[in-house]
Amino acid sequence: MKIERFKENPLITPEDVKPLHEGYEVIGAFNGGVAKYKDEVLLLLRVAERPISEDPNVIKAPVYDPETKTMEVLTFNRDDETYDFEDPRMIRKKDRLDSFVYLTSLSYIRIARSKDGHHFTVDEEAFLYPFNEYQTYGIEDARCTQIGETFYINFSSVSPKGVCDSLVSTQDFQTYQDLGNIFAPENKDVLIFPEKINGKYYALHRPSLKSIGNYDIWIASSPDLVSWGNHHHLLGIRENNWDSGRIGGGLVPIRTEQGWLVIYHGATKEHRYCMGAALLDLENPTRVIARSLQPIMEPEADYEKNGFFGDVVFGCGGIQEEDQLTMYYGVADTSMAGCTLSISAILQQLKEENE
Amino acid sequence: MKIERFKENPLITPEDVKPLHEGYEVIGAFNGGVAKYKDEVLLLLRVAERPISEDPNVIKAPVYDPETKTMEVLTFNRDDETYDFEDPRMIRKKDRLDSFVYLTSLSYIRIARSKDGHHFTVDEEAFLYPFNEYQTYGIEDARCTQIGETFYINFSSVSPKGVCDSLVSTQDFQTYQDLGNIFAPENKDVLIFPEKINGKYYALHRPSLKSIGNYDIWIASSPDLVSWGNHHHLLGIRENNWDSGRIGGGLVPIRTEQGWLVIYHGATKEHRYCMGAALLDLENPTRVIARSLQPIMEPEADYEKNGFFGDVVFGCGGIQEEDQLTMYYGVADTSMAGCTLSISAILQQLKEENE
Repeated sequence: MKIERFKENPLITPEDVKPLHEGYEVIGAFNGGVAKYKDEVLLLLRVAERPISEDPNVIKAPVYDPETKTMEVLTFNRDDETYDFEDPRMIRKKDRLDSFVYLTSLSYIRIARSKDGHHFTVDEEAFLYPFNEYQTYGIEDARCTQIGETFYINFSSVSPKGVCDSLVSTQDFQTYQDLGNIFAPENKDVLIFPEKINGKYYALHRPSLKSIGNYDIWIASSPDLVSWGNHHHLLGIRENNWDSGRIGGGLVPIRTEQGWLVIYHGATKEHRYCMGAALLDLENPTRVIARSLQPIMEPEADYEKNGFFGDVVFGCGGIQEEDQLTMYYGVADTSMAGCTLSISAILQQLKEENE
Repeated sequence: MKIERFKENPLITPEDVKPLHEGYEVIGAFNGGVAKYKDEVLLLLRVAERPISEDPNVIKAPVYDPETKTMEVLTFNRDDETYDFEDPRMIRKKDRLDSFVYLTSLSYIRIARSKDGHHFTVDEEAFLYPFNEYQTYGIEDARCTQIGETFYINFSSVSPKGVCDSLVSTQDFQTYQDLGNIFAPENKDVLIFPEKINGKYYALHRPSLKSIGNYDIWIASSPDLVSWGNHHHLLGIRENNWDSGRIGGGLVPIRTEQGWLVIYHGATKEHRYCMGAALLDLENPTRVIARSLQPIMEPEADYEKNGFFGDVVFGCGGIQEEDQLTMYYGVADTSMAGCTLSISAILQQLKEENE
């Protein structure tokens, strides 16, 4: 697959973003959803801020209370036998390493704007900041679907109650309407299709399962974008492959003549994140026509391989112009990058691999 | 709390149910949803059938293929180092004891009928038998909500893809219409309210969370009973209490003058299951008015304390006549029992405990 990475990459780094909180540092400006609004490209950046710790043995965890609008910072000592600090993103109990109890940073959504799609200016303020009890640990990984004049933005709401997927709508990227938690916990990586199909809205989603099942992609339908049902299992992880550990939706599905093009992320059990593609039936998107055996993009550039959490390319949105897809993607859970791909080349790879 | 257990208890035991499958034994006839249909009480029994094993060292796991309508039986040796067989209900990997890989029985829904509510006859055939790929490990724990002339029956669909909650509707308890998976995995114990509230349907649900969160009760709303959104956390587990391990909806919520009466199950971390009560605002059921500090029912009778999985009372439905609530409940994951309670007495306990 021919990929043209932007020569300006990484486009936005944590150093480009001033923290909103005193005594905090920005450690990530990544996984941004994408919108074309008026004559600008908007990136709905996930900005992660961490309380500065002078002592490497002291780990801090920020918890926001939207009711009192105050931040509490908990401190942990790295020697504490109860907790595991190996994953820099989270604090886990030593006897429950498949779950976490705190995050080490608070994420929220902040907009970066560009006229040319290559040079971005980051807003001074947040666009989406935790506003309810489901977001005390933050708001992560926004995706943006334009339907008519309205932009629907969904994201993960993280709190001790669970990880929900929530929705807001906006028409101006200044104010928004809260449409609630649209998927019950535990769910992430929801991608709303940009138009109704046979009278219904559709969305990809990625539940995280406890008792049985894998980190697979499901699809659901809705009469109103708020309520979702008709849940179908769509794509599963594949053993001994680049997407053996977990998969999840990436970009808003793209209508092509051959079907809905789904560009999704997949990771190995060792957390190496690549992007792959699948093709769904135009009239019945619960039917998979083809799926890429090889990833269409792998972490190769230095800024993709090294960072807060390395070996990650994580596309959350793109802009299509004829055959060219400009994909914006998070790298190493740290920064944002951009690249262009040819849609027909992706379709060609899918065709060849599935013949 | 004054509870009148039926003198005929247990009302239905595995011995009363002839297996549908040759070479199988019925090990459970329990957790039955309840409907009042014409002049009969119907129990939508969960019947669990297990392949007979002559050798106590051989554990068997049935897996049904709804496409080919064939059952595959996998066999395991108790000495196998890979697996854990301690929980008689399931087969788990030794390194993943919080999840399972197979169940040791296949459940489906079979109707028991009674004119007097005390003496039941079990149908010869299944009413709901696994009919799609989400049910290869079975169908469990049906609940039935009557709205107008239609009965909506939801249940857990279990397969390696996950544990979904699914819905069918019926008007005659002979044929049914499939309404799909209404809650994405992992979810159980869905209870649909019996009427619209301010123009929307409501349901309790109980997601099982992997990364963060507890086995708590949530509430959602719907325009059409098929698609659900507006997910709110409703009731949490309570440390050092009878409901410290997990909770989940039990009976269809009951409209009273003081609010929606929710009778739910709660268990300790040691899996002792009791029934408790909560009261929700009539106009806004996402608002909790009161919650029982003490259970309203605990496993006390011999048939509740001993069985396939002992120390369990698990109510899935009831019939209300004036102030009297007849609750039908699964006991010890084995049999069905019945009892009567006074609704005003439950409300009085809630009032006193929350004063």
